[in-house]
Amino acid sequence: MDAAIIAIGSELLTPEKIDTNSLYLTERLNARGVEVVLKMVVGDNRQRLVAAMRHALAAADLLILSGGLGPTEDDVTRDAVADLCGRALIFDPGVLEAIEERFRRLNRPMAEINRRQAYVIPGAHILPNSRGTAPGQWVEHNRQHILLLPGPPVELKTMFEAHCLPRLDALLPAQVIRTRQYRVAGMAESDLDQLISPIYSKYKNPATTILAAPGDIQIHLRARCATEAEAEALLAEVGDPIAELLGNRIYSRNGDPLEKVVGDLLKQRSWTLAVAESCTGGMLGERITSVPGSSNYFAGGFLTYSYEAKTKLLGIDSALLEEHKAVSAPVAQAMAEAARQLLGTHFGVSITGVAGPDPGPETEPPGVFYVGLASASSCQAKRFQWAPGDRHRIRVIATQSALDLLRRALIS
Amino acid sequence: MDAAIIAIGSELLTPEKIDTNSLYLTERLNARGVEVVLKMVVGDNRQRLVAAMRHALAAADLLILSGGLGPTEDDVTRDAVADLCGRALIFDPGVLEAIEERFRRLNRPMAEINRRQAYVIPGAHILPNSRGTAPGQWVEHNRQHILLLPGPPVELKTMFEAHCLPRLDALLPAQVIRTRQYRVAGMAESDLDQLISPIYSKYKNPATTILAAPGDIQIHLRARCATEAEAEALLAEVGDPIAELLGNRIYSRNGDPLEKVVGDLLKQRSWTLAVAESCTGGMLGERITSVPGSSNYFAGGFLTYSYEAKTKLLGIDSALLEEHKAVSAPVAQAMAEAARQLLGTHFGVSITGVAGPDPGPETEPPGVFYVGLASASSCQAKRFQWAPGDRHRIRVIATQSALDLLRRALIS
Repeated sequence: MDAAIIAIGSELLTPEKIDTNSLYLTERLNARGVEVVLKMVVGDNRQRLVAAMRHALAAADLLILSGGLGPTEDDVTRDAVADLCGRALIFDPGVLEAIEERFRRLNRPMAEINRRQAYVIPGAHILPNSRGTAPGQWVEHNRQHILLLPGPPVELKTMFEAHCLPRLDALLPAQVIRTRQYRVAGMAESDLDQLISPIYSKYKNPATTILAAPGDIQIHLRARCATEAEAEALLAEVGDPIAELLGNRIYSRNGDPLEKVVGDLLKQRSWTLAVAESCTGGMLGERITSVPGSSNYFAGGFLTYSYEAKTKLLGIDSALLEEHKAVSAPVAQAMAEAARQLLGTHFGVSITGVAGPDPGPETEPPGVFYVGLASASSCQAKRFQWAPGDRHRIRVIATQSALDLLRRALIS
Repeated sequence: MDAAIIAIGSELLTPEKIDTNSLYLTERLNARGVEVVLKMVVGDNRQRLVAAMRHALAAADLLILSGGLGPTEDDVTRDAVADLCGRALIFDPGVLEAIEERFRRLNRPMAEINRRQAYVIPGAHILPNSRGTAPGQWVEHNRQHILLLPGPPVELKTMFEAHCLPRLDALLPAQVIRTRQYRVAGMAESDLDQLISPIYSKYKNPATTILAAPGDIQIHLRARCATEAEAEALLAEVGDPIAELLGNRIYSRNGDPLEKVVGDLLKQRSWTLAVAESCTGGMLGERITSVPGSSNYFAGGFLTYSYEAKTKLLGIDSALLEEHKAVSAPVAQAMAEAARQLLGTHFGVSITGVAGPDPGPETEPPGVFYVGLASASSCQAKRFQWAPGDRHRIRVIATQSALDLLRRALIS
């Protein structure tokens, strides 16, 4: 079965708003082997919505509509589906009762206008809305399925989970979907793809998707089979050689971001961490502390953005700074070690680099950064160079590289 | 003139990817008074794309296509438009020459497959691609306009700015669009709307759009008139009373984010800044240093995530911490003042709070934070309380509140 999704609402045709319900719906549908072949966004216009639905139903037997179920004149989805099916809307006292009950529970008066939401397509299966006023509807028409869902994401998701997925599963042939994922830090997408595409490109099942963000690549495998054993065997056939090739470049197999993986490793070992940041200006600390409970292992750190701050806060010798400049291996090492000692932690991690666009007073060009890593037994620094241009991207990659260097030290 | 936009690419029908080109295009079109009435996403399927274009051209006379111009068999946009127009693609030696020249400049061999990109719709106006291989095409068919643009955003934007907007402006009736915008920190959207909706809701022209992000609200006014004077008069009629009501809660009138506004104020006065962060863990420093040139005024700071770090790094009296707890006005003040003194700056700003979800050892509940602000002449702290729940949201609002408190001090 193929699906089409239409998001309804004039605000979704402005430069500021985007339909994201379709991403959630696609994920849920794909997990059941239903492909989305078409997405549309139309404004609050009854005739245009009817035309869009006709077009969509020529491509897909499952049509999911989101939005346009509110109580105002602008909310045209119910009327448009009635037009499409050639049926007149009917008033459903049970639906009105549910809406009134909701208002009573919230201790608010129901406006007369909300009665509009109690009109339904004859023959529709009503989908209760536990998070809002407008019920959804599941309409069968010419052996095709049209789902009317509310636009607010929390209402749509709650309704879809509780009342649509069970009905959908009953329609679909029995099959099993199993997935695997790997997350890899610090590789360029083209390098990674060159390495692993000889493996995965021979297979349509499992399907392989590669998602690249700065310094972070996700590999998703999805197998669809009649039995769980077959699906797992296929995942192993493709996933195991990929995992072997990538080795410890894989930092996560469950989707956790790198800061969570590093945090878990530190927590398991009861180790603590301090940081010293220059060009990233706090982004490394921000990522580490984005994980709830990070106070168990993160002591704190230093933002030494200027030369003077490096001297004053970390006690770095100004002769060292003058000789090597701030963006250098010796200074990265000194920063990491000073952070570790000053905060009395097991590890110290530092970043110093040129985020750009201007080179500043450094001899290294924009796009170059050093990561320093200090422990009780050793102190190292590693140089990284990426194509410059986007200040934010370089800073994200620098924090990713720092977290990954620490991760490798923690598991070695 | 109305417009429709079709994004082409099977990857845009997965749960991970979303078409964002249409947001940029909509912004540019709206600024010229062209409304987008329909958006679609279709996969790499020639027949389906032809059907989608037919549907779109029934609703709009300007159809913009993005994607599907690459060199592979999957790239079907050229062929589909040729099908739609009933014309056969022709080989354009000039286009091939431009593609070959690009490869020469990049010192890379051109694959034979790239010749596919030199096929054009007969009669099309060719749109040069300065950022990639595939040229765009502007096709007129039955007095309607079909634009074939590349999918990568940087290529699409560069091409649209340089080669599409001038042609589009020549097609449109003469009119003037003028805009105003205000950015406001630290107000809830509902409070702001209650304050200003009595003013703007009486007007359809200028159109008012309100965009709310955590702790940050943007108000956009857009007037469309025959003359510039009329447009400016309308903007003044609506914008001036809004600006008066909001007063110095408005931090920007040109779209600059708060960290840039604060940075400019500091730079103008040759003042310097240091920070001390607890619950935000580096986010404040990260935001300040996201502005290129921030080294002119940002000295650095301290991430004092633990009680121990507050004592060791900032020298805060542990008796003070025990008496008031870390999330308190006296500790916020002490943090700001210590950061200022240790780094020898004009200002020190601190944040200490409970980001949640857990309350931790504090007496204040999640969602509460204090901002401290120290200068040579004074030291203050302010308490903020927001609905808890989302850790990231609370941290963003905390940095926003800290930057705004500093901004008010700088302009007072």
